[in-house]
Amino acid sequence: MSTPRRLLDPDRLAADLAAGSRAALSRAITLVESTRDDHRELARSLLTTLSGSAADAVRVGLSGVPGVGKSTFVEALGTLLTGRGLRVGVLAVDPSSVRTGGSVLGDKTRMPRLAADPNAFIRPSPSAGTLGGVARATAQTITLLEGAGYDVVLVETVGVGQSETTVAGLVDTFLLLALARSGDQIQGIKMGVLEFAVVVAINKADGDRVVEATAAARDLAGALRLVRGRSAGSPAGSGGSGWSVPVLTCSGLTGDGIDEVWAAVLRHRTTQGPDGLADKRSRQRWELTWALVRDELEQRLRRSVPVADTADRVRPQVLAGTLPAPAAADAILRAFDAS
Amino acid sequence: MSTPRRLLDPDRLAADLAAGSRAALSRAITLVESTRDDHRELARSLLTTLSGSAADAVRVGLSGVPGVGKSTFVEALGTLLTGRGLRVGVLAVDPSSVRTGGSVLGDKTRMPRLAADPNAFIRPSPSAGTLGGVARATAQTITLLEGAGYDVVLVETVGVGQSETTVAGLVDTFLLLALARSGDQIQGIKMGVLEFAVVVAINKADGDRVVEATAAARDLAGALRLVRGRSAGSPAGSGGSGWSVPVLTCSGLTGDGIDEVWAAVLRHRTTQGPDGLADKRSRQRWELTWALVRDELEQRLRRSVPVADTADRVRPQVLAGTLPAPAAADAILRAFDAS
Repeated sequence: MSTPRRLLDPDRLAADLAAGSRAALSRAITLVESTRDDHRELARSLLTTLSGSAADAVRVGLSGVPGVGKSTFVEALGTLLTGRGLRVGVLAVDPSSVRTGGSVLGDKTRMPRLAADPNAFIRPSPSAGTLGGVARATAQTITLLEGAGYDVVLVETVGVGQSETTVAGLVDTFLLLALARSGDQIQGIKMGVLEFAVVVAINKADGDRVVEATAAARDLAGALRLVRGRSAGSPAGSGGSGWSVPVLTCSGLTGDGIDEVWAAVLRHRTTQGPDGLADKRSRQRWELTWALVRDELEQRLRRSVPVADTADRVRPQVLAGTLPAPAAADAILRAFDAS
Repeated sequence: MSTPRRLLDPDRLAADLAAGSRAALSRAITLVESTRDDHRELARSLLTTLSGSAADAVRVGLSGVPGVGKSTFVEALGTLLTGRGLRVGVLAVDPSSVRTGGSVLGDKTRMPRLAADPNAFIRPSPSAGTLGGVARATAQTITLLEGAGYDVVLVETVGVGQSETTVAGLVDTFLLLALARSGDQIQGIKMGVLEFAVVVAINKADGDRVVEATAAARDLAGALRLVRGRSAGSPAGSGGSGWSVPVLTCSGLTGDGIDEVWAAVLRHRTTQGPDGLADKRSRQRWELTWALVRDELEQRLRRSVPVADTADRVRPQVLAGTLPAPAAADAILRAFDAS
């Protein structure tokens, strides 16, 4: 009852968004992050209105373990892009915020220059209950940012659980930050993430760490070539077999190499081509549809009290090996059906 | 009604199994592969009886793309082990057999010596409808083989979809076969599989390919060290941070290096320790329980006619971008609830 009228009018909200109102953008994002049924309905109308527009941002996923310098990198890349007259949205996908109720990612104090930049919009990770909920909200927020005329959307995530896979399913190009470590090693790379990383950058290549970072980049490029081949075997998200993953060096602190990383992102975009990109986004939307369906079923499972009770009862027997897993699964399913 | 009485008596079957009857083993596997409710009930009784025994095999997963020489490798390793008086079971997990109704993996004609060996038992991939169904049947078949006194169970898979992840969840040690390719490259390695490979072997290291294979093994070991570090960052399935993934060379054809590969498997087993191994198996059983629950929900989704109709209807709109994925997901869920 107390909700302002303007929040509840999707057409008005869409018009305010398109006119560049940051307040309207914030309100719209709050709407798509809401789990209330009436908000979902409004969000649906709003997004359907917006999906008619041809707005199209460069969507980039960014991953790297804590300590790799993601905030400093985003600050450097973001201000580089806004300096060129581009409007930049920064989103975060942090599954840990689902548990803690608050995200360190996307915290504006980590990016003071970008946070004060009128051409940048920073939004922390939604805490929508599940990774599926976060994916749902983030996918819709990307559409909102595009509707609001943003040219670039950066979606950052920290390498926890399935978060990288989720982000990879929402963006055009997936960028992985890593660090050189003493002793010819590289820090912060998980094999599974290399499966869909399209551009890799060794960050903190500044001062006396330049030599080390350059060597690490060369070694990693060699390792990727060894396993993937020079042309065949491109990563899952690369959108074509012609892409060879570049391993670059950069410094979020000094800004060195940031331009080259961005150039690699745009080169990857060109390689995909407009049709390739459109196909990829179509596929992503359909995959997201099913991911959201599965997430909802998973949530029903988790919310069911009989399921929780049965799981608590059979768990010790399964762990001890006295009850076979299939029998335990059948018991849990019976409890689910009874709930 | 026409089913023989002995098939329907779990205690008798368990006794015959324990006595080493191959016919009883085949019958028991047929039972656990069945999707009939009465068979599932019998399978449950049988497995509960067997789960009381302390039987404990060395469970090894084996993966590698077609052409890597898996059959020749299994033939060489299997006969090496039976030659030492060990009893060896060979199972296959081939999700493609779910579609085609028949598996090339586990085909006995590919392993003529092992197929004729009284101490070996080869079983092709079950075609139980889904990867979850295959996982269910395979997990139970491993228990049957242990109940029948087998010392080693090899579970081979071809790298399709989620099959490696599934097999990794059923075994103690995951072994990956790869090939050296001309031009300092390695064939048949997916980054995602390296995430849980615990031992890697470059196969077909024979004749004039020895030099190439040795170089490939050295390079891959270097690449793994680079990304994973020397001691930290062990693969997911290694069961401890002290394990450094060995990259060996071998030839299924000549038998060279097969013994060393097996020694690495046993070394990995020792590293895990009896408690570590028991903990890992407990965790695997509980993870399998939930995987089977999710698979059943997924199957209900796939079997639902209203879901299929709705998906057909919304798919073009989602692909065209006129219907947001969350709205499409909600429509599919409503159809599911109505079915």
